[in-house]
Amino acid sequence: MSEKISPVSIAVLVSGGGTNLQALIDAQKSGIIKHGKINIVISNNPEAYALKRAENAGIDTCVISGKEYKSKAEFEKRLVETLENKGVELIVLAGFMRILSGDFTSIYKDRIINVHPSLIPSFCGEGFYGLRVHEAALSYGVKVTGATVHFVNEIPDGGRIILQRAVNVRDNDTPETLQQRVMREAEWQILPEACELVSKKISMMGEGYEYI
Amino acid sequence: MSEKISPVSIAVLVSGGGTNLQALIDAQKSGIIKHGKINIVISNNPEAYALKRAENAGIDTCVISGKEYKSKAEFEKRLVETLENKGVELIVLAGFMRILSGDFTSIYKDRIINVHPSLIPSFCGEGFYGLRVHEAALSYGVKVTGATVHFVNEIPDGGRIILQRAVNVRDNDTPETLQQRVMREAEWQILPEACELVSKKISMMGEGYEYI
Repeated sequence: MSEKISPVSIAVLVSGGGTNLQALIDAQKSGIIKHGKINIVISNNPEAYALKRAENAGIDTCVISGKEYKSKAEFEKRLVETLENKGVELIVLAGFMRILSGDFTSIYKDRIINVHPSLIPSFCGEGFYGLRVHEAALSYGVKVTGATVHFVNEIPDGGRIILQRAVNVRDNDTPETLQQRVMREAEWQILPEACELVSKKISMMGEGYEYI
Repeated sequence: MSEKISPVSIAVLVSGGGTNLQALIDAQKSGIIKHGKINIVISNNPEAYALKRAENAGIDTCVISGKEYKSKAEFEKRLVETLENKGVELIVLAGFMRILSGDFTSIYKDRIINVHPSLIPSFCGEGFYGLRVHEAALSYGVKVTGATVHFVNEIPDGGRIILQRAVNVRDNDTPETLQQRVMREAEWQILPEACELVSKKISMMGEGYEYI
């Protein structure tokens, strides 16, 4: 099967500082991501610095704030419209702080990926986000942690694993130092790699794409 | 504080082939383990090939078969007698297939270590032993697994972690190939390292030893 010429249209969903978005932008520039192209960055938070990063890179941005919608269903309807307008084929959650409904994730089966800062199935699921993940890992006393990129389904952190990378815990680590190292050594590496991996599959399989 | 001259007396408890025991014997020969000395290998299974490995290395052996005792308490009483006769200060479980009671583990607090073929807290606890651990890891779809050396307390695989090492899962891994690689790349490395680490602490702290 021959590859499509146009790269897979990617939306990155963000809520905050956007360091994972930056890793994706850098990976696109350096050619690590070549089968996909970030066409839009969507934030639920108008203050997110990630929006600035997108603008600096010349990528379209859009704010869809949950507060402005009566229900999650209304919010997600607006999200779907925006994604369809941009012909989005792959959604990357990069520090996006809202949980998407099963209705939404089933529309985009095998088309939404997320990065989680632990080696799933350790320290994941409801309540495990941000610094809390690293606090839990240190409190448990693990000597190895890491990050996971996985597909998103209706179960928090429950979708199929795409890539994982291990990071050693140091004796003097705090949740903050561990978070930083997991980002640098794992998240910022495997999120772009997974993005390229899935983009490539989509571009080769076209409409009939189903991740195997 | 000066170190004691005599090495810490180690007992290795086995049930089967004894490849982890072999790693310990080799590490003792090569000087990786220098603060401890394997003084006895105890098997609950008279047929264990581990006994032969011990004999080949000139280490005393002892069979304490559960079947010959009316109760777990009787079995463990005999075990304690044997350990005391040898002045054992550190117990290493190397594929020992019996669960020790809380009574036993509390006598030897911070003095029993075990190796488990996953990155705890993933794929551990009751029912997770041997090939089942790797079957569970592959079935879950993790891309990184590994091994853990931990202290043994009354909770299966619940004691404090001493060392962990990550091992990458390959796309074509079977439970058997993964088990072999986890042994070779992780278990046979970190079990001797942890054994030396704990032996050193015991030898430096003496009677008042408590693992910090």
